[in-house]
Amino acid sequence: MASHSLTLFSSSSTFAPFSSHQIHSPNLSTVRFPRPINTKPNHHSLRCSVSIEKEVPETERPFTFLRDSDDDSTHSSSVRARFEAMIRAAQDSVCEAIEAVESGPKFKEDVWSRPGGGGGISRVLQDGNVFEKAGVNVSVVYGVMPPEAYRAAKGSASSDQKPGPVPFFAAGVSSVLHPKNPFAPTLHFNYRYFETDTPKDVPGAPRQWWFGGGTDFTPAYIFEDDVKHFHTIQKQACDKFDPSFYPRFKKWCDDYFYIKHRDERRGLGGIFFDDLNDYDQEMLLKFSTECANSVVPAYIPIVEKRKDMEFTEKHKAWQQLRRGRYVEFNLVYDRGTTFGLKTGGRIESILVSLPLSARWEYDHKPEEGTEEWKLLDACINPKEWI
Amino acid sequence: MASHSLTLFSSSSTFAPFSSHQIHSPNLSTVRFPRPINTKPNHHSLRCSVSIEKEVPETERPFTFLRDSDDDSTHSSSVRARFEAMIRAAQDSVCEAIEAVESGPKFKEDVWSRPGGGGGISRVLQDGNVFEKAGVNVSVVYGVMPPEAYRAAKGSASSDQKPGPVPFFAAGVSSVLHPKNPFAPTLHFNYRYFETDTPKDVPGAPRQWWFGGGTDFTPAYIFEDDVKHFHTIQKQACDKFDPSFYPRFKKWCDDYFYIKHRDERRGLGGIFFDDLNDYDQEMLLKFSTECANSVVPAYIPIVEKRKDMEFTEKHKAWQQLRRGRYVEFNLVYDRGTTFGLKTGGRIESILVSLPLSARWEYDHKPEEGTEEWKLLDACINPKEWI
Repeated sequence: MASHSLTLFSSSSTFAPFSSHQIHSPNLSTVRFPRPINTKPNHHSLRCSVSIEKEVPETERPFTFLRDSDDDSTHSSSVRARFEAMIRAAQDSVCEAIEAVESGPKFKEDVWSRPGGGGGISRVLQDGNVFEKAGVNVSVVYGVMPPEAYRAAKGSASSDQKPGPVPFFAAGVSSVLHPKNPFAPTLHFNYRYFETDTPKDVPGAPRQWWFGGGTDFTPAYIFEDDVKHFHTIQKQACDKFDPSFYPRFKKWCDDYFYIKHRDERRGLGGIFFDDLNDYDQEMLLKFSTECANSVVPAYIPIVEKRKDMEFTEKHKAWQQLRRGRYVEFNLVYDRGTTFGLKTGGRIESILVSLPLSARWEYDHKPEEGTEEWKLLDACINPKEWI
Repeated sequence: MASHSLTLFSSSSTFAPFSSHQIHSPNLSTVRFPRPINTKPNHHSLRCSVSIEKEVPETERPFTFLRDSDDDSTHSSSVRARFEAMIRAAQDSVCEAIEAVESGPKFKEDVWSRPGGGGGISRVLQDGNVFEKAGVNVSVVYGVMPPEAYRAAKGSASSDQKPGPVPFFAAGVSSVLHPKNPFAPTLHFNYRYFETDTPKDVPGAPRQWWFGGGTDFTPAYIFEDDVKHFHTIQKQACDKFDPSFYPRFKKWCDDYFYIKHRDERRGLGGIFFDDLNDYDQEMLLKFSTECANSVVPAYIPIVEKRKDMEFTEKHKAWQQLRRGRYVEFNLVYDRGTTFGLKTGGRIESILVSLPLSARWEYDHKPEEGTEEWKLLDACINPKEWI
């Protein structure tokens, strides 16, 4: 496996432009970061102006991607360790559920690590019985963020402090599932945790942490029962923690997955949140876990119901057209994708979110009142489904 | 026809970020510009923070899209008038040649104009006998550029002058032709002319003008004869004007159509130039004309040779994969596309450059020595073909 990759850039002091928002991005390689500028010539490619630290392919999944110092007895109950365990369990359970639906085809797995700590597991199932393309990735990254990003994240109160580069830890699970049947919706989910180390040169500066993530779905045709089921499960997961979560994160999702040049959302939403740290940390860990555990019950029953429905070429063409919109969103707007592409993340992991196939017709407009029109209308005017 | 569109913003003093580079962009809506920020509420959409001046659909092609003041007897021999005549003739001749190859299917035409002057003709032939999607557009735009862009274009010598917004004129032809047969290459060409008016508030400040454009092609499989033929025609067009043009513009093309995150070019190049004004204006008008007139002889014989070749599903899948790269380049890097999407150009004209269908396979790597590998290798390591 080729292993161009995320970079930890822990020994560099020159960085690409960077903001705390760009760190928390809902994308398939789960967490991606800028690379140091390296002026050393690179014989390999035109990428010579930017260095990429290579991942090392692994033949087996390690017990943990945490650094040894994070994984001793003191730290095994840390949020880092528990978050990694959670996302790996989520990856396993989603992949098992997908393989059960597939009955036969299996995920292809790529495992990689980095000498300095961190690594990831990419799993892709392509051209299966039910799924055109299903990707479920986890990754763990140790890196260093420029002090500006750290200061921005902490707010203006600390602007008088001048910390150096701030070491950070990030971990996430991310997945996009594109079924073949045009009546079965595409699903995307991503849950991620981010933590800085205490800056050594600024005594008393606090350790920072954030949670981010969400689950959203993208049907080509609306089955109201499906949409209600999907949103109900999201709401149930949210309501266990805070009654404000579902309405707030539902709206955040509608706002985030917005294709501005089309004035449409890419799909029918779900939940999305980012930079979340103004709640109890343990509560947010449990909340993220609950959300990740809700993926299978929210999605798999819908796929089971729709995967064998008969469809025509017209239905398939419409699904392909909506897949084109998915590509437009991911390549033009998705923070993680655009940032990852520009800063040298592992391309195959980033772009596994793209569908196996997509379509662009000139000036296509569904006739008012048709099923295609209803979907488009719901993407233009987000609804309250429950 | 829906007519969201380019905006002339001639009566606004607030602009989106803007640079002279962004004006000269090789894309299908030929010339695109930023829009004024309009804080008036817009009932129609979430685009409410930015207003879009609508084009007016026309039932007939006007004799000219120039303003009356540009089209009187004094101006009919102006570069503006002659450039418009040239690009419209190029549009006609390319469309005629495509329709002759199609023998049956015809272009669909959308004509539009703007009350303040300017307009365009979009022609699209979709799902024909030979072409999956063929788009050939011309447009003429009157606008106002922020003084910063004008100053940047003129260089630092005039930094002591403080002109107000500078009226400009821009016109271009742009085309992307995607054939069905995987052995027939995709072609893109774009020729454009840009001119500022003399700023009324800065006596003596000069009128500025630039030419830009190019013709490049993107096969999925290499036929050396085709590549040599295509590049030879480009070189012949260049050599009539300056022996330095072909090598310089060939390299510029290889550099421009570069998919950085893949470390590949999208195709096998051709010629590309931008911001060209350091030659005689009449010479560059003739050069652009020669290049536009070279499109048919450079491309049509190749399509004729390849359009009926037998192919397998494997060939088609590889073509689709390369179409995916085309989408990646256009949505992520192409200045005109990204700028147009972000500033509210006519979406259907901008995105007609995208293929009817495209494909993304996870971690696809052609086996060394295969025909697919040879194409990829030539995209990674640009060659001198003649």
